[in-house]
Amino acid sequence: MKKAVILLSGGLDSATVCAIAKKENYEIYALSFNYQQRHNIEIEFAKKISNKMQLKEHKIANIDLTIFGNSALTDNNLEVPKLQDVENQKNIPITYVPARNTIFLSFALAYSETIGANDIFIGANAIDYSNYPDCRPEFIAAFEKLANKATAIDDSRFKIHAPLINLTKAQIIKKGLGLNVDYKISHSCYDPIIINNKIYGCGTCDSCLLRLKGFKEIGTKDPYPYK
Amino acid sequence: MKKAVILLSGGLDSATVCAIAKKENYEIYALSFNYQQRHNIEIEFAKKISNKMQLKEHKIANIDLTIFGNSALTDNNLEVPKLQDVENQKNIPITYVPARNTIFLSFALAYSETIGANDIFIGANAIDYSNYPDCRPEFIAAFEKLANKATAIDDSRFKIHAPLINLTKAQIIKKGLGLNVDYKISHSCYDPIIINNKIYGCGTCDSCLLRLKGFKEIGTKDPYPYK
Repeated sequence: MKKAVILLSGGLDSATVCAIAKKENYEIYALSFNYQQRHNIEIEFAKKISNKMQLKEHKIANIDLTIFGNSALTDNNLEVPKLQDVENQKNIPITYVPARNTIFLSFALAYSETIGANDIFIGANAIDYSNYPDCRPEFIAAFEKLANKATAIDDSRFKIHAPLINLTKAQIIKKGLGLNVDYKISHSCYDPIIINNKIYGCGTCDSCLLRLKGFKEIGTKDPYPYK
Repeated sequence: MKKAVILLSGGLDSATVCAIAKKENYEIYALSFNYQQRHNIEIEFAKKISNKMQLKEHKIANIDLTIFGNSALTDNNLEVPKLQDVENQKNIPITYVPARNTIFLSFALAYSETIGANDIFIGANAIDYSNYPDCRPEFIAAFEKLANKATAIDDSRFKIHAPLINLTKAQIIKKGLGLNVDYKISHSCYDPIIINNKIYGCGTCDSCLLRLKGFKEIGTKDPYPYK
């Protein structure tokens, strides 16, 4: 079996990517990050996804991005914007974490090199998204070029797969449901609400809004609980 | 003053790079890593260099690269090779840490974006070195291209400076001495020896050998203590 490293946040997109890679017969080595994100509860969902999908391995890297801050996800003094017009967003919102996907992919590259994997998967998408620069196709292409100059095997070995990059959220969900992804155990909310040890999506941050919009478009109820 | 982020390991090369950037009137934001490296004592030297050179800021990022291992620097079960023929080394030695410079530069990029710096300096060199792929000019160039696709400002803003890349170790030292770098407080050894709380270079790992060769070539004694 071919090995693949997959960036698994615990959210809807990365859960779908795992299902896609599994369908393509990859042996999956998942990588999650505790970067002291506001919603680091997502890591628990990544573990659930990894268990349920019986992934080969799941590593969690601890990297503290609060030392740089400058994002509502890594600085608790900044508030997560609510009820934004996500369909017509022109700016990059304050939930953007500087260089996050560059950092995540660089760890994925280290992981790939050590296990001898040629394929790295990321759930980036550039349609129903928050204009994050490091989700765009040109970023993915540039990282792939870098990867093939960065390691001990200097050829065109590494491929960065971003199978969701041109899909709408509705199309992603449709694809995932077709592959039996259990979206109840995927967490997307940036600003989760915890009541009596139960976790709910806020339903109003960009990430919840985009997710809910996707489910609405395909006429299916999101199985994730919201407050 | 222009701001620059500098990767400061605490070694001879990065100390020299700091002096070069200072000479060029940059305000220096230094970044060091505790990646659980065998020689993480180097961080203490990075602090000394930062203090002595009165750098503007010095951050230390904690990232545990032992989760990937596969290097004599991040896996204590692997031994650091000694007394290698560093001048004729053809292979990549086991001290190579997979994707390390990709990871370091991605953190430097995050740092730069948050403080509004356009310039990142790295002490990579590809002459008297250990064949690490992520020290070569083509790697640096690829990272610069990536950087300019990765962040909220999509232009040719970021420049990755590697001012030592084509210098021999002797030339680097000569340059540093001309800029009054105090090499006594720079630590290069991969496998340091600690006796009575005093730290010594082993004198036989690749890093010590390259450093000692450089000092020998310019006919100056290395002020760092060796055992």
